[in-house]
Amino acid sequence: MSTDVSWVHAPCHPIDSEAAEAARQRQDQLTKPQGSLGRLEEMAIRLAGMQATASPSVDPVQILQFVSDHGVAAEGVSLFPQEVTIQMLRNIARGGAAVSVMAEAIGARMEIFDIGIATDPGPVEGVISARLGAGSGNIAREPAMTEAQLADALALGRTAVERALDNGARLIVCGEMGIGNTTPATALSCALLELEPHELTGPGTGLSAEGVARKTQVVAQALALHAASEQSPLELLRRLGGFDTAASTGAFIAAAQHGLPILVDGFIISSAALAAVRINPDTRHWMLFSHSSAEPGHRRMMEALGGDPYLNLGLRLGEATGAAAVVPLLRLACTIHRKMATFGEAGVSEA
Amino acid sequence: MSTDVSWVHAPCHPIDSEAAEAARQRQDQLTKPQGSLGRLEEMAIRLAGMQATASPSVDPVQILQFVSDHGVAAEGVSLFPQEVTIQMLRNIARGGAAVSVMAEAIGARMEIFDIGIATDPGPVEGVISARLGAGSGNIAREPAMTEAQLADALALGRTAVERALDNGARLIVCGEMGIGNTTPATALSCALLELEPHELTGPGTGLSAEGVARKTQVVAQALALHAASEQSPLELLRRLGGFDTAASTGAFIAAAQHGLPILVDGFIISSAALAAVRINPDTRHWMLFSHSSAEPGHRRMMEALGGDPYLNLGLRLGEATGAAAVVPLLRLACTIHRKMATFGEAGVSEA
Repeated sequence: MSTDVSWVHAPCHPIDSEAAEAARQRQDQLTKPQGSLGRLEEMAIRLAGMQATASPSVDPVQILQFVSDHGVAAEGVSLFPQEVTIQMLRNIARGGAAVSVMAEAIGARMEIFDIGIATDPGPVEGVISARLGAGSGNIAREPAMTEAQLADALALGRTAVERALDNGARLIVCGEMGIGNTTPATALSCALLELEPHELTGPGTGLSAEGVARKTQVVAQALALHAASEQSPLELLRRLGGFDTAASTGAFIAAAQHGLPILVDGFIISSAALAAVRINPDTRHWMLFSHSSAEPGHRRMMEALGGDPYLNLGLRLGEATGAAAVVPLLRLACTIHRKMATFGEAGVSEA
Repeated sequence: MSTDVSWVHAPCHPIDSEAAEAARQRQDQLTKPQGSLGRLEEMAIRLAGMQATASPSVDPVQILQFVSDHGVAAEGVSLFPQEVTIQMLRNIARGGAAVSVMAEAIGARMEIFDIGIATDPGPVEGVISARLGAGSGNIAREPAMTEAQLADALALGRTAVERALDNGARLIVCGEMGIGNTTPATALSCALLELEPHELTGPGTGLSAEGVARKTQVVAQALALHAASEQSPLELLRRLGGFDTAASTGAFIAAAQHGLPILVDGFIISSAALAAVRINPDTRHWMLFSHSSAEPGHRRMMEALGGDPYLNLGLRLGEATGAAAVVPLLRLACTIHRKMATFGEAGVSEA
């Protein structure tokens, strides 16, 4: 097992600013008042710049679904028992979870990974077994990952992105499921943003005020435990993250290095996006932000990333469901860009 | 020509609150934390109540596209010359306009009406000729419509809704195109909401500050001219509206009477929604609001209607494009509601 993660610092693919500018000029020639399609115009322009094309497209969409357990669940930070992780893994694979229904409905491909559930489920149809352990370490008492586990999680994300690219993917989405995982996502984000636990800790799946207070205490305990360590983003990810966030971080960095647009999901995946940008800042240019999570701390993460999410529908489920909801809008934006007539083509007088 | 419009006061279809409650209970049994799909849950619950079903669906979607001219364009209230209306009618019919591309992309049916362009275009493939005149009257100098024209416009909307129902439609959307039409929409809304012209007047297709000031003056002139008239919503619609808003108002009232859910588009169509609710208040229960328009006055209209639009993407095009963008989200909401597994079905432990 190698612990070399130096690849994460390799340069990102450049954005093609000429293609973006050409797309902007085309938008201004389409038969509508300039700017009147608002952020649908912006989506097409940004994708054109990322994909270096006059015909941006997000298809095929590849979802990477990372399912794992988190040792910190032992601290009582979730409404649900830890066994729900393995139950939901099966539910996602069988098509019963929200993301399963949405992925099918939007025609997205999905790879589902067991990257470290507490109990090995054995072979599950539709699930890639890529277990990095029986759950990550309890961040309130130990690092989430060893150096080898961190390297493997990052590499897993990279490999999945490279496989997606081989299969023609034009947009990458990461999702996650794992009981307790808002807690490490909160702790990691507090450390990266130098915020106090109470500024980011929220109810997750639905904690009461007392539950949130308890969770805030656990986040504070984790931050205190690891405060004396090296504070590099990679080391913070190793100590305070999880298999799901680390794999997503690796996927995001690799996507940016290979020039594949990223659609960022909600609270937990945004913590991975934050880690990716702190590790390799140009990753940011490859990110589109799908939605404002109802988890209150998400707003601070978007502010730090300079992200302006497209949707605000009160979602707080994870599993890539917020990103999946945005895919039809990105598709409409690309279709409009490609198919609308220009003033000249349609014989319509300009302003 | 009859001027009898008494049908608009007939009762609306009742909402099935038991079906809505059953849908809410089902949402709470689906394999996700309760409420974690936010407004996607709300969409399914509201549609279930409207459609009195456990399996809500918005398909087929019927768009009614009302194209007409407005005499007030003579006052110089738009960036574009009036000839653009007839040019855009042809562009919409040929598939080059934003709504044409979006309707095809989302698989919606669309009927396109010439309900009174300034110049009769003669037969245009894909366009229903239903001309109520050579544009509506210049509201700054005369009523927009005669009593007969108002009655015909309302009836046109009703007839189109009844045809859509015969063809199985489960969601109705109205769109509009017509140079100058934000001005009557603004004047009508000012009158209905008792607001000052400067509180609602905005740049429309892209007026400069001086252009907005001029337009505000025209709105004020129209309001002053008609201030001494009877102030019933129907009479205000006749004097200050247009063929497009009146046809949409008729469509919305008929949809609510027949129990067909309504998805409201942007600024102009919202003025028609406002008129419909003031004429027949229970129409409100049948309305979903698609997006917050970038036209600044739209916010006041939503406040008055108690509407909380789903999207806020800076759109200000009209043509039903904002509503079209929401259709995939409504569809996802219905599919999730229908296809997700419950905790019991999936063997997932509850909180």
